[in-house]
Amino acid sequence: MRRNNLATILRRLHLEGQTTRSELVAHTGLNRSTVGALVSELKDEGLVVEEPGSSGSVGRPSLAVAPRAESAVVLAFDFRVERVVGAVVGLGGVIIDRVEHTHMRAEVSPAVAIRQLLSISHELLDSVPQDALWVGTGVGVPGIVDPRDGLVKQAPNLDWVDVPLGKLLSQALRDEFGEVPFTVIGNDADLGALAEHVRGAAAGLRNVIYLSGEVGIGGGVVLNDQLMSGAGGFGGEVGHMVVDPDGAPCRCGSRGCWETVIGLDAIVSCLKNGNADTTVADVVASAQAGDRDTARRLDAVGSWLGIGISNLINIFNPDVIVLGGHLSEVLPEVRKSIDDKVSHAIRASREQVHIVAPVLGVESTLVGAAESAFVPLLAGPIEALRESSSFLSS
Amino acid sequence: MRRNNLATILRRLHLEGQTTRSELVAHTGLNRSTVGALVSELKDEGLVVEEPGSSGSVGRPSLAVAPRAESAVVLAFDFRVERVVGAVVGLGGVIIDRVEHTHMRAEVSPAVAIRQLLSISHELLDSVPQDALWVGTGVGVPGIVDPRDGLVKQAPNLDWVDVPLGKLLSQALRDEFGEVPFTVIGNDADLGALAEHVRGAAAGLRNVIYLSGEVGIGGGVVLNDQLMSGAGGFGGEVGHMVVDPDGAPCRCGSRGCWETVIGLDAIVSCLKNGNADTTVADVVASAQAGDRDTARRLDAVGSWLGIGISNLINIFNPDVIVLGGHLSEVLPEVRKSIDDKVSHAIRASREQVHIVAPVLGVESTLVGAAESAFVPLLAGPIEALRESSSFLSS
Repeated sequence: MRRNNLATILRRLHLEGQTTRSELVAHTGLNRSTVGALVSELKDEGLVVEEPGSSGSVGRPSLAVAPRAESAVVLAFDFRVERVVGAVVGLGGVIIDRVEHTHMRAEVSPAVAIRQLLSISHELLDSVPQDALWVGTGVGVPGIVDPRDGLVKQAPNLDWVDVPLGKLLSQALRDEFGEVPFTVIGNDADLGALAEHVRGAAAGLRNVIYLSGEVGIGGGVVLNDQLMSGAGGFGGEVGHMVVDPDGAPCRCGSRGCWETVIGLDAIVSCLKNGNADTTVADVVASAQAGDRDTARRLDAVGSWLGIGISNLINIFNPDVIVLGGHLSEVLPEVRKSIDDKVSHAIRASREQVHIVAPVLGVESTLVGAAESAFVPLLAGPIEALRESSSFLSS
Repeated sequence: MRRNNLATILRRLHLEGQTTRSELVAHTGLNRSTVGALVSELKDEGLVVEEPGSSGSVGRPSLAVAPRAESAVVLAFDFRVERVVGAVVGLGGVIIDRVEHTHMRAEVSPAVAIRQLLSISHELLDSVPQDALWVGTGVGVPGIVDPRDGLVKQAPNLDWVDVPLGKLLSQALRDEFGEVPFTVIGNDADLGALAEHVRGAAAGLRNVIYLSGEVGIGGGVVLNDQLMSGAGGFGGEVGHMVVDPDGAPCRCGSRGCWETVIGLDAIVSCLKNGNADTTVADVVASAQAGDRDTARRLDAVGSWLGIGISNLINIFNPDVIVLGGHLSEVLPEVRKSIDDKVSHAIRASREQVHIVAPVLGVESTLVGAAESAFVPLLAGPIEALRESSSFLSS
């Protein structure tokens, strides 16, 4: 009970930031003295501070409780096909430091991936105070992940099959830093959905689809406030929904998968005279500058995007569909093409859905990886601190 | 607490039939005397009887508790595009009587539908004992239904838009029979999924997709033992997943929806010289008799079926996909075509799924309609009986 109440308060502070005691009383339904005692306990552990509230109301400003970002941190990684982004994130979701390394698609063997993650971990941990507690590590990958042990069953665009990333990373971190806390591997789109659901475009909404738009297209689905898992935690692979049975071969072995027509390669190839360095921004700029050929091809991508989105609306009846990664970059340009196709979706569901860009920009998966690593601390603050023996001074 | 325990026991008896007291003790985790008191209470209400157990073990046979089918009944309807099936179903899921009326597609205005339902209700209620309690009415329809009030928002194959079937039916039953109990309208595939999940091919499995194969194709999705609802209860419209963007127009206004290539019309048109009376059985018989043309066309339907099923496997990672209605009739003939396409689904999810025919045959939706009508009785037996004033003698 006390554990649950501590967790409720710390979670609220983590997600909302500075909060008055009165707001905590209202939020928890506990009485004022109980909330006071719980806040004191969190203060004693160094997780929160009290400071004059920034409320705009007149009269004596009430004390406000705030999470101490540097008290407990996690390492978060968004491991992509062409780069890896890492961040050290403090309690309250504060990004304390962030680094990004690019790599070639062909280079990312599991061994290389582990070396990159270790090297970035060193960089990141150097930037946090010595007395900060490292409470977890979360990694998003563009593949099918077994949530129980972080086994990457299949990551077509990395050419990975049955890579035990969770075990490899835990072992590597342990070899490097001694005892290390909780490590979790997640599907990139699932983590994007989680992040947008708790602190992004889908905050307060119960049924959410997040599309990770990278080389491949992943889907993270939140239904009734719960991440959809399916029988083994492998669902949400909307990028491999076949929308064009006579279409191009996909890396998964099928043909005409949605990601073959809306993935990164499909978008950059909209630029007629593009090359290997062409970016999505180049394509958008060309279309905006009046290049009809690029604009026409981009419209075609928008139509495919709309066809798949209509399917998802009919299948899930979501409150919101968040277009992540490069999909958010092209959204303003292709909005009309999407809407044309979505106008054919079942009316009842179509009328309820919003199609939006992520509030967290390109960081949705990174933020989701951080959130997933904070789970044990937020579920049982004191116990997690006791088990989190890895002081960064090690 | 007592209400919950009564509900747990009655629900168990309803789903499992005759059960010994010892099994109830094991199932509920309650002690023997508490179970005894609860069973006595259900006996006093006439809902259950005790009789010598049919256990095969030696020694004194223990008393077994069994639901009394004729103590509490529901009316269940499966309202389809070309016919309506009605049944009166007793506690324990016993179909006491069943009738079926056919109609022409063009004939089924909401007013006609209500008249049919009323007429069948009379027939059915005549066949149950005078002292039976009528505890609810459930209707499955091939359309998008608002679960809150039974408003049929859209039923493309009936040409219905915003038909308040729940209100119309409650009012009509009240005018005819006086005070009537709980009436619930559900999507046909949702009810099929519910039925196969509680007493069919998906019993004991947590992630289930049921496809209703009629004129149109509906989908009912159970995730983590809960019926997927989405934002408004309108999800699961997998029949309107576009799989062939250049394909034939669909009644929903889109093009190349899955139901245009695997719906009833697509299957009966596999028979080269078919006519308006051609049935799915005719098509299967022709293919089995060696008609190459029919077999080839049926294989094509099987491939489309496989493409859509692959999509659902990738999207949901289900434990089981149940092919209802005419899809179960063609399943043995097209199993190979399905498997060929499903072999391209994501391996991790493909390895977990079973593709099966419904255990309840063509009655899945009917049984689901009955189950949904039993919900109030099973949730709070005594309260439901008090409110269920409509003796059939009225």
